[in-house]
Amino acid sequence: MTASSKSGSKTDAGRFFEHFRIGETIRHATPRTVTTGDVALYTALYGPRVAVQSSDAFAQAVGYPRSPVDDLLVFHVVFGKTVPDISLNAVANLGYAEARFLKPVYPGDTLSTVSEVIGLKENSNRKTGVVYVRSTGSNQHGEPVLQYVRWVMVRKADEAAAPTGEGVPTLAKVVDPASLGAAVPVLDRARWADDLAGGPYRFGDYAAGEKIDHVDGMTVEEAEHQIATRLYQNTAKVHFDGHAAQETRFGKRLIYGGVVISLARALSFNGLANAFHVAAINGGRHVAPLFAGDTVYAWSEVLDVAEIPGRADVGALRLRTIATKNKPCADHPDKVGAEADPAVILDFDYWALMVR
Amino acid sequence: MTASSKSGSKTDAGRFFEHFRIGETIRHATPRTVTTGDVALYTALYGPRVAVQSSDAFAQAVGYPRSPVDDLLVFHVVFGKTVPDISLNAVANLGYAEARFLKPVYPGDTLSTVSEVIGLKENSNRKTGVVYVRSTGSNQHGEPVLQYVRWVMVRKADEAAAPTGEGVPTLAKVVDPASLGAAVPVLDRARWADDLAGGPYRFGDYAAGEKIDHVDGMTVEEAEHQIATRLYQNTAKVHFDGHAAQETRFGKRLIYGGVVISLARALSFNGLANAFHVAAINGGRHVAPLFAGDTVYAWSEVLDVAEIPGRADVGALRLRTIATKNKPCADHPDKVGAEADPAVILDFDYWALMVR
Amino acid sequence: MTASSKSGSKTDAGRFFEHFRIGETIRHATPRTVTTGDVALYTALYGPRVAVQSSDAFAQAVGYPRSPVDDLLVFHVVFGKTVPDISLNAVANLGYAEARFLKPVYPGDTLSTVSEVIGLKENSNRKTGVVYVRSTGSNQHGEPVLQYVRWVMVRKADEAAAPTGEGVPTLAKVVDPASLGAAVPVLDRARWADDLAGGPYRFGDYAAGEKIDHVDGMTVEEAEHQIATRLYQNTAKVHFDGHAAQETRFGKRLIYGGVVISLARALSFNGLANAFHVAAINGGRHVAPLFAGDTVYAWSEVLDVAEIPGRADVGALRLRTIATKNKPCADHPDKVGAEADPAVILDFDYWALMVR
Repeated sequence: MTASSKSGSKTDAGRFFEHFRIGETIRHATPRTVTTGDVALYTALYGPRVAVQSSDAFAQAVGYPRSPVDDLLVFHVVFGKTVPDISLNAVANLGYAEARFLKPVYPGDTLSTVSEVIGLKENSNRKTGVVYVRSTGSNQHGEPVLQYVRWVMVRKADEAAAPTGEGVPTLAKVVDPASLGAAVPVLDRARWADDLAGGPYRFGDYAAGEKIDHVDGMTVEEAEHQIATRLYQNTAKVHFDGHAAQETRFGKRLIYGGVVISLARALSFNGLANAFHVAAINGGRHVAPLFAGDTVYAWSEVLDVAEIPGRADVGALRLRTIATKNKPCADHPDKVGAEADPAVILDFDYWALMVR
Repeated sequence: MTASSKSGSKTDAGRFFEHFRIGETIRHATPRTVTTGDVALYTALYGPRVAVQSSDAFAQAVGYPRSPVDDLLVFHVVFGKTVPDISLNAVANLGYAEARFLKPVYPGDTLSTVSEVIGLKENSNRKTGVVYVRSTGSNQHGEPVLQYVRWVMVRKADEAAAPTGEGVPTLAKVVDPASLGAAVPVLDRARWADDLAGGPYRFGDYAAGEKIDHVDGMTVEEAEHQIATRLYQNTAKVHFDGHAAQETRFGKRLIYGGVVISLARALSFNGLANAFHVAAINGGRHVAPLFAGDTVYAWSEVLDVAEIPGRADVGALRLRTIATKNKPCADHPDKVGAEADPAVILDFDYWALMVR
Repeated sequence: MTASSKSGSKTDAGRFFEHFRIGETIRHATPRTVTTGDVALYTALYGPRVAVQSSDAFAQAVGYPRSPVDDLLVFHVVFGKTVPDISLNAVANLGYAEARFLKPVYPGDTLSTVSEVIGLKENSNRKTGVVYVRSTGSNQHGEPVLQYVRWVMVRKADEAAAPTGEGVPTLAKVVDPASLGAAVPVLDRARWADDLAGGPYRFGDYAAGEKIDHVDGMTVEEAEHQIATRLYQNTAKVHFDGHAAQETRFGKRLIYGGVVISLARALSFNGLANAFHVAAINGGRHVAPLFAGDTVYAWSEVLDVAEIPGRADVGALRLRTIATKNKPCADHPDKVGAEADPAVILDFDYWALMVR
């Protein structure tokens, strides 16, 4: 809710570029208790199969008190809270960086989000600017569970308005693997059953440069992405208003990019079954939009493998997961270079923890 | 299950107009335990954002033992139980009145519904009649949580049959605001955080006559309204049977009116964020049908503001919420007078409690 | 995960016919904690109305500690686990037999599945063979909750490969009714309220030969069956990949047969309200495929009525439930004989327990 909007109607029109100030802290609305109901919906919407998140019994055997909530469900809920304040008037979500999952979230925990504005840069057309925020999701005890940076292009309400300041933060290209694993208890590797987990390959079986086609495809319907995006209380209207969408350049609703990330991650089980935890997101770009009726495929490249100091139970794989639409990934379609493939919709760079 | 249907096949054909008797009490089938799973689905289907229902931590801070279930979810579940007995052979659901929410419902509570027939009036064509019922939803302790009147036009099985009696109840046009608030504990206003709640406007900021456009639109898909309506175990076949619907005058499935009410209420968060509780429904009319693919918009007029005796924590806003299809509400389209707008689908008059 | 697939890529291509050995035991991946979230989704996807599963209060009144999970939800979850190992390369799911529900499953229980290969038979074309497995779903205490046999036609990876053995198991045509009821506590019949349960007919009111049209129809959308099938973590790609489906003989996604079984069972409430428990499945055949947009109807014939030794509270009805698409069942369309009706999609033979 902006101060300016209060003076007019009671409807919140969202912030525009010139309303943001560097250093400003925004506590976002609608804290959210995450439940087993949300977990069931997440499973039903994407089909994740990682045993730690699927089975309390498996989670307890290896060292958790119970199954933690899927990391990406946490991400979407924490992210969703920021939309009304940060990106209601966004033209494009430009990128993510420095995302770290800091504590496990369990059903019953309540998540809320605070964002700090860490950068502003007006575009040369003076109609838009880029806003950088560092958002922190915390649980009901005030403990941070997720922190990440995103930057987004936001419209100006008044082209003549001057920005309140300028500055672009320096962001790490890769999260330091030494900082990973905070959300994972020390695991009892002896009780990690590969057959129950669904794959025989452990940390030591992967090497940088390896490419894995995740084979399966998943078609997305309007009802599915709308149900998912509302579950996260993400209010970006481009996902929901089919009537208004007729007047846009696409002529139809856009699917929330988080749906693509979750689908690609769920598909990646086939080849990465023991990569049980998203520990950090180094970067992510939504290269092209996804629409209802499209089918998502994915493949991954292992960019790096890293040990984590003090952890003999788990190691970190730096993965680049590429998602495409309507094109299987057997030949690893990519978006870079002369052979950039227009089927690519997501380029996602993250650290996954894998049992050793 | 009617006595008459027992003599024939074991399939229940539902009651027809001449089967109802004034004063008769019907205990409806299928008591229903409401869970956090239902709450998650409700969130995913409509996108409500009121903090009291979204966050256990917020609810506890202000005085609830935990987040209560959304009032309209309670309404739909209590209503759904009545369908097989009251409205399986209905031509139209004509109206609601005197609805009061009497106690909070929490996940784990079991709801069941009893209806008393309080009025009957045969139509002059002798093919149909209007049935008035007062329905009471109770929890597992037998405590009423919701009571309301509805009237519905029901077909006769036999045109020659005489009604069992006649009489039309006198119904209040407005629920007395002095009776509101039974379902709300005394709130600790100091701990109601406007930023977490999502809006700076409290009871004192609203005045009768004020009109608020809720701005956003939500397109509804077949899968969404079917999932919602089955969640309430509402069995009205017009919502589910697309094959039979081809032979109807619309040629397609009708969306349960309760879906429209819930969407309009969720959209109204933008402008009414602190109106955290539906305390009573004065009246409601489904002016026109909604179909899959349509986009719902809404606006509200404040009809009245009322203090509640003995309550310094909350006040009551009497709101008239109008929902439209495929037409934004910036200019407050209405259904009355010479300028009745065919886009209007719902006219809903209710009391919302708002923190002071 | 097959040994052969490990040597190649890390992606699991699933087992082919020549990879199975008679007597082999496979512990399937992805144990699954079933929650009230899953129950809510199951309700929302099919609309079941049996009071025992819907209401903790009703369940407790008659003798359960709380509402057990719907038997078919248990079936689908236990079945889903077997898909990646047994039927990823299946041409057709040929049948089920000897299914028995052995213990109630409650929210919070974790299900896992083990299968024993009990038969193999290569087809004369040498391109496929039939695999028979006996699958057992167990809870977190290692107690079997469900056991069943299914057989499925599986492709060979290498036509020249010899089967590892041959043999076809002898399967019972009907589960012995004396073995039924293990999953049902002794019920307090005096507290079974027919009005709450939704039907006046008890065990003694049904006779062999009786046919019941369940009247209602339910149209299925792509989003609904995908959400259901992912909820069970069933990974069969024919249900999800609309892009690849364009190249198949149907040109579109196939709906998981379990969706049809659950819909037919939910529709059968109208006529069989007091048949509260699926105790055993004698056999089931998916006669024809179902596609999104089709409407499912059902009717049932009582094949047999049986007392259960030592049980004065419940009796068993052997039911044959026929489901059709896009054709109501008033005249009991069947699939046998000269008048086989192409609208029939399911022929399902099971034992239901009904209160006496």
